[in-house]
Amino acid sequence: MTENFSYSSLFPFAEKIFLKIGCSAKDAEIAAKSLLIADLRGVDSHGVARLSGYVRLWETGRINAQPSIKIVHETPSTAVIDGDKGLGLVVAPFAMHVAIDKAKIAGTGWVSVKNSNHFGIAGSHAMMALQHDMIGIAMTNASALVAPTFSTERMLGTNPIAVAIPAGKEQPFVADMATTTAANGKLEILQRKNEIAPNGWVQTKTGEPSTNANELKNGGALLPLGGDKEHGSHKGYALGSIVDIFSAVLSGANYGPWVPPFPAYVPMPENMPGEGIGHFFGAMRIDAFRPADEFKYNMDKWIQRFGSAKTVEGQQKVIIPGEPETAFEKERMKDGIPLLESVVKDLRNVGEKFGVEL
Amino acid sequence: MTENFSYSSLFPFAEKIFLKIGCSAKDAEIAAKSLLIADLRGVDSHGVARLSGYVRLWETGRINAQPSIKIVHETPSTAVIDGDKGLGLVVAPFAMHVAIDKAKIAGTGWVSVKNSNHFGIAGSHAMMALQHDMIGIAMTNASALVAPTFSTERMLGTNPIAVAIPAGKEQPFVADMATTTAANGKLEILQRKNEIAPNGWVQTKTGEPSTNANELKNGGALLPLGGDKEHGSHKGYALGSIVDIFSAVLSGANYGPWVPPFPAYVPMPENMPGEGIGHFFGAMRIDAFRPADEFKYNMDKWIQRFGSAKTVEGQQKVIIPGEPETAFEKERMKDGIPLLESVVKDLRNVGEKFGVEL
Repeated sequence: MTENFSYSSLFPFAEKIFLKIGCSAKDAEIAAKSLLIADLRGVDSHGVARLSGYVRLWETGRINAQPSIKIVHETPSTAVIDGDKGLGLVVAPFAMHVAIDKAKIAGTGWVSVKNSNHFGIAGSHAMMALQHDMIGIAMTNASALVAPTFSTERMLGTNPIAVAIPAGKEQPFVADMATTTAANGKLEILQRKNEIAPNGWVQTKTGEPSTNANELKNGGALLPLGGDKEHGSHKGYALGSIVDIFSAVLSGANYGPWVPPFPAYVPMPENMPGEGIGHFFGAMRIDAFRPADEFKYNMDKWIQRFGSAKTVEGQQKVIIPGEPETAFEKERMKDGIPLLESVVKDLRNVGEKFGVEL
Repeated sequence: MTENFSYSSLFPFAEKIFLKIGCSAKDAEIAAKSLLIADLRGVDSHGVARLSGYVRLWETGRINAQPSIKIVHETPSTAVIDGDKGLGLVVAPFAMHVAIDKAKIAGTGWVSVKNSNHFGIAGSHAMMALQHDMIGIAMTNASALVAPTFSTERMLGTNPIAVAIPAGKEQPFVADMATTTAANGKLEILQRKNEIAPNGWVQTKTGEPSTNANELKNGGALLPLGGDKEHGSHKGYALGSIVDIFSAVLSGANYGPWVPPFPAYVPMPENMPGEGIGHFFGAMRIDAFRPADEFKYNMDKWIQRFGSAKTVEGQQKVIIPGEPETAFEKERMKDGIPLLESVVKDLRNVGEKFGVEL
């Protein structure tokens, strides 16, 4: 049901498509890299499977392939960036670079972004800080699919938080998580397999617990991390809200139920209070706190201690955040990226439209 | 089963006890304020109920009542502070002031703290930023009670995260949450009532699901927000880990299973890699991103829209983070703070020891 493609065949394909919609050579390369890193790290829902979605957004005029991305306000440690409707895949690395440059001088850098679009996986942007011996942080809001605790309305996106922390000899710590019980991509996997969803992932239109993986199509909603009040869903709802506010109320993007949808066929919300979708990025220089070698020595110790903690029967080891994704990245760079037939077909359709072969 | 005390009787009582153990007049006032705000806001587990615990830590020499709290490293937007074994109730406001002062000049301020002790509720420190039109962030690690996903070992504290965000006409948004399904205080309430715990709060010594509210006494552990892997406990575990690393690996405090316990009778862990417990604070000036009035206008709109979202049947409204605590604060400031008999007895014992009447 899947076909294997090498990174070195998918990368130029995506790059050429971005060139065809009018991106500069530099932007097409950055966008292809931002997109493909999701496939490499095993987050299949956010990789090339979304390429045709980006193209459709461009076709409807909601993505500007030649944006003039600008800093509109700044202080020594902060900036607000106007993405000029650009691809989030390009706007986000730009913003993360600004955060890193500020951190070089002020110790930390914090950038809120408006007027952007879907930026791929949060983790890849946060990880840009690692090579500079910095902690990287990335978050974004997204169109509303999630009902707050006690609500039947979709008010928040799956609003992910990513934090990348450098280590010494060990692999870096990279957490990258939707603030929902399960990311929408996991629900889509169940839909394809015709399987039921665990309790606590979705609710019905009227707010009843549900195990129907297709509940969103019936007007239901995803649930915040925790699932219900008794299990802490007010915390998941608060986390998703913080992401929304940092990404959009700080920058001037749209928030809550007004965030533009990814699918180009879904109409835009009415009376939108801001511009595009919003992101938030941070970079903290390790040695703005403590000599980097001391930090890394202790971070290695942290990782080794947690990685060797006693396990429940049947489990091999306690997983350090980012460990499975790093393993995926190595494996898929070597053995290729498995794509579902439907994704391959979709990519070939896009390719045909622009005369690019996969 | 409870007795009511006015804020204006409990405050001087706590202040006098802190004076008796040797705090300066200024520190005793700050410590009493940090402690009592928990009772006012309805977080009974973190207020005066803990006063005797702080005294016992002082008796065993683990708290220094006259610390020389110092900035040991800094950049324009960061600092590391050595708490000199001081009361966390005093060290934390000191550190938050440093973060706020840095934000005034650099736009944001970020402070990691080592060599401290339990700091009360995280929310009160984060809220210090509000009056300066800043977003406040506070987190702390704590002694290990929580098992990471797939583990039977207690490796993390309940490691709370608090974020306080100013609004205009509306009350501020204040999230203050343990990164576990339920805070330990909630488990203690069930223990007192002899009730069972919901699934997903605790596990047994061998990692089996449990509903025994006393499971921690049998060698069990609290569970990260999410409860189990299927419900996203790896996310709660990652969040608790981030708090641990920002608070302690960045500052040079103890982390993971090496964090000193709050109860003075519990022996200290062996081979501790750092000093005391660690905290992390942040302050972000709103107008380092966007004019404060624009931000507040949109924050009010955010709060009004979420607060009026459609509810599931039987629920009155969608709760904005901080709303219940703000209501508690008003009510208890007016009508008094209800204390359990056992807490009153404990306070009177402490009072007797020092010749202070309640």
